[in-house]
Amino acid sequence: MGGLSADEFKAAFRQHPSGIAVITADAGNGPVAMTASSVFSVSADPPVLVFSVSQMSSAAPTLLSADTLVVHMLSAENLDLALLGAARGVDRFADTSLWARLSTGEPYFVNAHAWIRGRVVDRMRIGESTVVAVHALSSNTPEDIAPAQALVYHNRTWHQLSPESRIEA
Amino acid sequence: MGGLSADEFKAAFRQHPSGIAVITADAGNGPVAMTASSVFSVSADPPVLVFSVSQMSSAAPTLLSADTLVVHMLSAENLDLALLGAARGVDRFADTSLWARLSTGEPYFVNAHAWIRGRVVDRMRIGESTVVAVHALSSNTPEDIAPAQALVYHNRTWHQLSPESRIEA
Repeated sequence: MGGLSADEFKAAFRQHPSGIAVITADAGNGPVAMTASSVFSVSADPPVLVFSVSQMSSAAPTLLSADTLVVHMLSAENLDLALLGAARGVDRFADTSLWARLSTGEPYFVNAHAWIRGRVVDRMRIGESTVVAVHALSSNTPEDIAPAQALVYHNRTWHQLSPESRIEA
Repeated sequence: MGGLSADEFKAAFRQHPSGIAVITADAGNGPVAMTASSVFSVSADPPVLVFSVSQMSSAAPTLLSADTLVVHMLSAENLDLALLGAARGVDRFADTSLWARLSTGEPYFVNAHAWIRGRVVDRMRIGESTVVAVHALSSNTPEDIAPAQALVYHNRTWHQLSPESRIEA
């Protein structure tokens, strides 16, 4: 149906910063993890978030068949987890000090700033990608929400929010 | 189906920064605009993005019936547009110096940092919200992608990326 080339589209989205999440799951064939810049809240009541996964991701088969998964919201201190979830050809669970399993079985990264465990409730296929809708069942959120902790990805670089980056409306 | 309360869910998403977009359309009943922190790229080939719209938004009827729309990626210099698209009970098109129409008819904000015009190709209803999938048809993207221009929303505050906010992987 025509439209923008992939390069033109990517150029436009380099203008659009994002928070970073790592999504983990285990559908019975071992834990997988994927770094995503594509997580947002759709609805607070019911509590539903979405993310997208490309068929090209090694984690796709598991993320698209898992009933439940964990979405970790990363802080700047979690940049190592963002890089781990984005690395190719590595065992993302080789360092057993980084992860554990929830009592419900899902793998999760214990040092992640915040996380939500949820159940997949819908999927929308778009080309070679799928948008996954997740109903939030439980969460672990720190009391502290200092802006200095926030990690942002923009134009292929990493940024950390701080009181100095704040602007007034 | 239970799960997190709305307050718990919102607390978790306050940990997750986002870029900011304003989405405009006119389905025949006049122009509408809505500020959204819920825009991401799903696929570059085909070039598809998604955003979500709550039924509570005054722009929802138009955004959910329009065939085509414009997604503006805002810079820190566009904070006024972000506030305009989020304001309640105002005519967002009262200042006619801020907007024009593309040759294809869609209203757009002429000073927005970057924008993508696209056609709605799918929708996924989730509670009182809808995730809308948009196939990108055309765009206006500046050559300049200096980080100083990037606008980020985090924990109900606004931030501007800069060389000083950058961290090394």
